[in-house]
Amino acid sequence: MYGEIITIGNELTSGRTRDLNAWYAAGRLTASGLRVVRITSVGDDKIKVTEALASALSSSRFVIVTGGLGSTDDDVTCGIAAQALERPLCLDKTTLEAIRAYVELRGRKMTPSLEKMAWMPEGSRIINPRAGVCGFSLMEKGVSIYFLPGVPEQMRYLMDNFVLPEIISQYGNLPSIVQRTIKVFGIPEPAIAELFKQIKGRCGDALLGFYPQFPENHITITLRGDDKPFLLTEMERITKGIEDLLGPSAFARDADNMEDVVGRLLVRAGLTLSTAESCTGGLIGHRITNVSGSSSYFLGGVVAYSNDAKSRLLGVSNDTLASYGAVSDQSAGEMAGGVCRVIKSDIGLSVTGIAGPRGGTEEKPVGTVYIGICTRSGTRSFKFLFRGKREQIKIITATAALDILRRYLSGYPFISCL
Amino acid sequence: MYGEIITIGNELTSGRTRDLNAWYAAGRLTASGLRVVRITSVGDDKIKVTEALASALSSSRFVIVTGGLGSTDDDVTCGIAAQALERPLCLDKTTLEAIRAYVELRGRKMTPSLEKMAWMPEGSRIINPRAGVCGFSLMEKGVSIYFLPGVPEQMRYLMDNFVLPEIISQYGNLPSIVQRTIKVFGIPEPAIAELFKQIKGRCGDALLGFYPQFPENHITITLRGDDKPFLLTEMERITKGIEDLLGPSAFARDADNMEDVVGRLLVRAGLTLSTAESCTGGLIGHRITNVSGSSSYFLGGVVAYSNDAKSRLLGVSNDTLASYGAVSDQSAGEMAGGVCRVIKSDIGLSVTGIAGPRGGTEEKPVGTVYIGICTRSGTRSFKFLFRGKREQIKIITATAALDILRRYLSGYPFISCL
Repeated sequence: MYGEIITIGNELTSGRTRDLNAWYAAGRLTASGLRVVRITSVGDDKIKVTEALASALSSSRFVIVTGGLGSTDDDVTCGIAAQALERPLCLDKTTLEAIRAYVELRGRKMTPSLEKMAWMPEGSRIINPRAGVCGFSLMEKGVSIYFLPGVPEQMRYLMDNFVLPEIISQYGNLPSIVQRTIKVFGIPEPAIAELFKQIKGRCGDALLGFYPQFPENHITITLRGDDKPFLLTEMERITKGIEDLLGPSAFARDADNMEDVVGRLLVRAGLTLSTAESCTGGLIGHRITNVSGSSSYFLGGVVAYSNDAKSRLLGVSNDTLASYGAVSDQSAGEMAGGVCRVIKSDIGLSVTGIAGPRGGTEEKPVGTVYIGICTRSGTRSFKFLFRGKREQIKIITATAALDILRRYLSGYPFISCL
Repeated sequence: MYGEIITIGNELTSGRTRDLNAWYAAGRLTASGLRVVRITSVGDDKIKVTEALASALSSSRFVIVTGGLGSTDDDVTCGIAAQALERPLCLDKTTLEAIRAYVELRGRKMTPSLEKMAWMPEGSRIINPRAGVCGFSLMEKGVSIYFLPGVPEQMRYLMDNFVLPEIISQYGNLPSIVQRTIKVFGIPEPAIAELFKQIKGRCGDALLGFYPQFPENHITITLRGDDKPFLLTEMERITKGIEDLLGPSAFARDADNMEDVVGRLLVRAGLTLSTAESCTGGLIGHRITNVSGSSSYFLGGVVAYSNDAKSRLLGVSNDTLASYGAVSDQSAGEMAGGVCRVIKSDIGLSVTGIAGPRGGTEEKPVGTVYIGICTRSGTRSFKFLFRGKREQIKIITATAALDILRRYLSGYPFISCL
């Protein structure tokens, strides 16, 4: 039940790339009721790979190794594994034929570097021998070791379709794991940390986690046990308890995003939406349209970056721009109303602000943002002062705008300050 | 010179969060000429943390430990470190006073869990004792160990301002490291892999890496040595050689993004831009406006998601929509021309396509995308067929559109098919 993950590559130890393979494998194994006790990343270095393998063999029941399995010269895992496990490299004819067929099908030529991929430590079994994407596994001292490629798509495919089912089948009586994430927006982190202490008392044996994920905060609940129906009921009870405590700021569960929630609410209400974006530059529209089916409620938007675009496309009056400025309550309101009118949508959502790093003034410093919403019941706008770098201000502005829309559609009170 | 990184937290071994601390620390250390030989992640588990510390002490000169230093109950690193190193926990009065002052300044109350942060293994030195963000370091068997918090912003701050300068000062004669990334778009991965072999011959002692980073491909070059001026000259020579081989598809170096390159080209040409986006929903505008100063060339855009928005806001003719459809050469061209006219910009860039997963037909499957560009020399449009999930199609479409603009502004030939 205990396993570990070894990821190999100079790009990992040099910080060139993020180790998404370890993260993915750990998440999939954990969700299946298995426990990952260690993740080790080493460079393309014989001694370090050998050490990592030896250490894993002495303390785990299964090991996932990723990286270094391709056809380029720096792909050294196979040879190192063979040496570390004291097994000769053997040519696997099935694999060789599979590679040859794959290459010929694409009108390319077989090369020595491609042939190299068919050499594996003695006693290895190929994973997915019939396709271009393959890895191999072997058993050493009762420990199953799986060698997978480092390309994330390939690694994920093999992990989900071959490795995970095999590991699970070896451990008949895995405990059930039920996991939940509650996503929160609009309560600052210290306030959540305080709430968290109250939450802990209500949750019995549940394992709770708290993860700030800018600009949201995520609370995770994990239940482990043999009685899955009980776990599911218990999870529902705990989730509701925590959501009650958090109130309307708990906006989504699990893989749901703010834009998914907003999309469902718009569909339910039968309302259409348009956006008028200044400082976010299109990010709100991008997020809304990440949801499949969004064309049924999102009609479009205007990215009004220049004042001219604000007045000409959205009808923001020159008086408003001159008297109050483009970044003002009044402009936000007129932008929301304007985009509603121009695009003929039921709801218009607007943002205008100063994302920085330049453009701030004493009166309106960088991070000053106005969000407007125009609905059948009129137009409102809200002022915020966000902190952070340009991209962070754009991101929190987009989330805050979607959250205002969510609160409107749900009948929740608005938050006037974050 | 050899060091390693240990990151602690159940959220890492369970795959709940990505290990951005290890990635950051590894990158910073490598860029400073230091070598990270191993990264180990373990859960909040006494035995595993102890093992990881012992293993690091026997093979490295410095160790960066992150995670588990806060005030909540699952922050266990301090106690475990004390036990593993067989040093008693001592109360550090300076730290206690600093925490007390910090807390009082914010009108909060001192609690036992906050006091816990001031207990450290005997012989520890506080890092940054005067502020709310702190860690500690100690020397064990000639190895420097730095314990830093797991919150990324705090960890990065301490790493950059205290830990890295101290480590560097301990190793006077670090080799110079010169690194470069060449970013490529428009050459498929297998073709680059072939080119890569030719490249290797031209690069002397340089360490080359190849990293697909959807939808781009990145080639990295690392040079290490004592003569920094020579390394810089050599890097320039190698970079130029590789860029010559790649041609116009090598679009940027290092931290530069496609939108940065496009921005500079627009500034240089003194031209303004507007966008008309359908399937990307605003992503192109979002990317363009990620660049500080983009307001000088980006006037705005229209997100024309519905047909009605395409015709009413951009003037795409109803004939075109009826005869050719919204996803067509003709629509893309009219959208680009329309947005130019409506926003009064020098250049209009448009995309229309089917991001999926629904909406595809036999004639126009999911991934069919048309990109239009309207300039002083007329309007052109290009057809693409991209593969992938909805978000991937949006991302590659945005990059392809920006690339078309880049090629236009640079006088490079267009790619008609990716």
